Amino acid sequence: MRTAMTAENTLIAEAGYTPVESPESSPEALIERLASAGRIAQRTLARMDSPAKAHALHRAAQALREAEPDVLAANALDMAAGAARGLTGAMLDRLRLDSGRLAGIADAVDAVADLPDPVGDVIDRAERPNGLQLSRVRVPIGLIGIIYESRPNVTADAAALCVRAGNAVLLRGGSEAIHSNRAILNALVKGLVEGGVPADAVQLMPTQDRAAVGAMLRATGLIDMIVPRGGKSLVARVQADARVPVLAHLDGICHTYVHAAADPEMARIVALNAKMRRTGICGAMETLLIDAAFPAAQDIVGDLLGAGCELRGDSRAQALNPAILPATDEDWDTEYLDAVLSVAVVDGLDAALDHIARHSSGHTDAIVTADNAVAERFLGEVDSAIVMVNASSQFADGGEFGLGAEIGIATGRIHARGPVALEGLTTYKWQVRGNGQTRP
Amino acid sequence: MRTAMTAENTLIAEAGYTPVESPESSPEALIERLASAGRIAQRTLARMDSPAKAHALHRAAQALREAEPDVLAANALDMAAGAARGLTGAMLDRLRLDSGRLAGIADAVDAVADLPDPVGDVIDRAERPNGLQLSRVRVPIGLIGIIYESRPNVTADAAALCVRAGNAVLLRGGSEAIHSNRAILNALVKGLVEGGVPADAVQLMPTQDRAAVGAMLRATGLIDMIVPRGGKSLVARVQADARVPVLAHLDGICHTYVHAAADPEMARIVALNAKMRRTGICGAMETLLIDAAFPAAQDIVGDLLGAGCELRGDSRAQALNPAILPATDEDWDTEYLDAVLSVAVVDGLDAALDHIARHSSGHTDAIVTADNAVAERFLGEVDSAIVMVNASSQFADGGEFGLGAEIGIATGRIHARGPVALEGLTTYKWQVRGNGQTRP
Repeated sequence: MRTAMTAENTLIAEAGYTPVESPESSPEALIERLASAGRIAQRTLARMDSPAKAHALHRAAQALREAEPDVLAANALDMAAGAARGLTGAMLDRLRLDSGRLAGIADAVDAVADLPDPVGDVIDRAERPNGLQLSRVRVPIGLIGIIYESRPNVTADAAALCVRAGNAVLLRGGSEAIHSNRAILNALVKGLVEGGVPADAVQLMPTQDRAAVGAMLRATGLIDMIVPRGGKSLVARVQADARVPVLAHLDGICHTYVHAAADPEMARIVALNAKMRRTGICGAMETLLIDAAFPAAQDIVGDLLGAGCELRGDSRAQALNPAILPATDEDWDTEYLDAVLSVAVVDGLDAALDHIARHSSGHTDAIVTADNAVAERFLGEVDSAIVMVNASSQFADGGEFGLGAEIGIATGRIHARGPVALEGLTTYKWQVRGNGQTRP
Repeated sequence: MRTAMTAENTLIAEAGYTPVESPESSPEALIERLASAGRIAQRTLARMDSPAKAHALHRAAQALREAEPDVLAANALDMAAGAARGLTGAMLDRLRLDSGRLAGIADAVDAVADLPDPVGDVIDRAERPNGLQLSRVRVPIGLIGIIYESRPNVTADAAALCVRAGNAVLLRGGSEAIHSNRAILNALVKGLVEGGVPADAVQLMPTQDRAAVGAMLRATGLIDMIVPRGGKSLVARVQADARVPVLAHLDGICHTYVHAAADPEMARIVALNAKMRRTGICGAMETLLIDAAFPAAQDIVGDLLGAGCELRGDSRAQALNPAILPATDEDWDTEYLDAVLSVAVVDGLDAALDHIARHSSGHTDAIVTADNAVAERFLGEVDSAIVMVNASSQFADGGEFGLGAEIGIATGRIHARGPVALEGLTTYKWQVRGNGQTRP
């Protein structure tokens, strides 16, 4: 294995990159060059059938495994630079690759290769009275931009999903992972090219210049959709500045409402899991609504306190247990992503629906109840991407939904909603087959 | 029937509007008030079932008919103001209402009321190994903003489509139609309210202040989608300034490629219809590509010249007929919307695909050929919203596609593509039914 102490320029040269970042005079010219190359490559990719794309992705996974020495050496450079810049332990852990993690990344590329390809699926067909045959057929979106932060696995995950659905991709990762990202990209592209995919189908931004990100966000007509992957501030900046359509995940302020008719045992285990299984994921419960008529409220809050969760309640919730702190107005709109939970006592379904309508971020909201009519009203009236009955909100995940992988969980209302995988990376076209029809 | 010469303030007062335009201190505050009211109304609308929404829309259509005197009087004010401001004859014609046109508008509302309601449709279902039952169910998008120009019928058409799919709508029409729009809105709202729809579900911007349009375009989180309806400059401004997702139609640079194996008679009638049936619609052919091996090219250009179409050709096309003018580079990227056509002679399918990839606006492109393999390659490889074989591009229309109506033809690639009707005004949510599942 090569030593991690290789000088940066040497490594970059070895990885096939020129140290010159970009010859363009402006960020706009750079994005135009990259996007144009990506769009040309995408035309070839769009003509490849499903087995050909799968084959190329399996080659890419294999190339990643074979590039382990290069990738780990590059990652060591990033880790050393990160430590020197004073990144926290958690940030360094997100950045860190080892043999096992890299194998996991390659396995994930293989798994995406084996997912059913949505391209070519016929959404619907119709024959018109004049004999025209209409069908709507799934096609790739085109060129997808991905803007992400420190996890180098996104380079491979996002590229694989885009390519599986016939899209070209322009990746812009965080500067703290730049060597890792370049090494991973290099391996991926090597494998993809062996499988017949043009090299420009998967590109990594050659500069960390922030102005180039701005140019990406404004590149209407060149980039078809942008997916930001990262913390709230990154996503908010992308949403604020983008002219290109954005598929984004903002907050996950998820509620669980324990209805009066909930099975008490079920309510306890579902609530505990929804909050405490992993507190840092977007599907974690952030607010617990307990019906005033639910008889075992003290057991639920007792479980959560016992598991080390801080509870912040309204006055009626505070009456359930002296350890519950008072909630402020802000708490009801806060995504803690931590072992903290806001708790309110509500009077019946309508009060719960009203609280959720005012405070939910539209990600995932759940009810626990044994009353089927109440469950159906909740499913119908809560206007969130995911609504659940008698299940932990932590199931809000593309893998758990059987999508095989996800590019993200969308909290917007346009194009795709909730966990987004391959179908969300496609659009459709109308095919019309006639035999000489003219319009009267 | 009331005279058209009623003073403006009297008419506005009769129509239920206060002459004060808006009490807010800023355009943002105005949009926040209107959008918040619309969103609250939409929650009620979302709970109405399909027959209830249909009933309310039929009441609205009836109320429109009953308001004929008010609407025509209001329209006469707009016509008088338009004439005084020197609007062209074509613009005045777009603005003008009469008894027949108003009946047509009311009939269109009735027709939308009878369209199948997509809300509640189950897109797909799955059961996970852990017993979770997943389904994706169509739901309204929420609050739609419509920004349009002088045709007052858009007020009723767009409102009806939005309401049918359970959406609230904020309408911003052109100042030249303001009295007509207000009178139409008033009648619609009267009928909808009789049918149980909250009045705020359909609102018309109470001011013509352009800053309020800017505030609409930036109202992320308040307005869920904006649909501009109008000329290219309106749409381009909306696309440039919007932060809210936009469903827009830009250019319709539509091609028809006459392949070597095209039936000569079919090619003649299809090409003539694609260009000359109506030259001002977005689905009109703007460029004709004739294969060098097609034997009857002179007949096609002769038909078009004979029908009064100006032809601008490359040098090989010019050789077909001395009346063909030389085309400039710009011609290949021009949407004439007039009796003008650019014509190129190409060498085979690949050259045609290449020309289309470079110059098409992605709206509608067609091929005429008797060779099935060539047709299927064209359908597969041309990356436009609508691709046609052996049919006139003038069929690019929601009504012709059996959608019953359309809010527009989308030339973007996200959310919906081509003719957009009710389905494009919905999104979906994931419903998950469990029996106490927790995530391991």
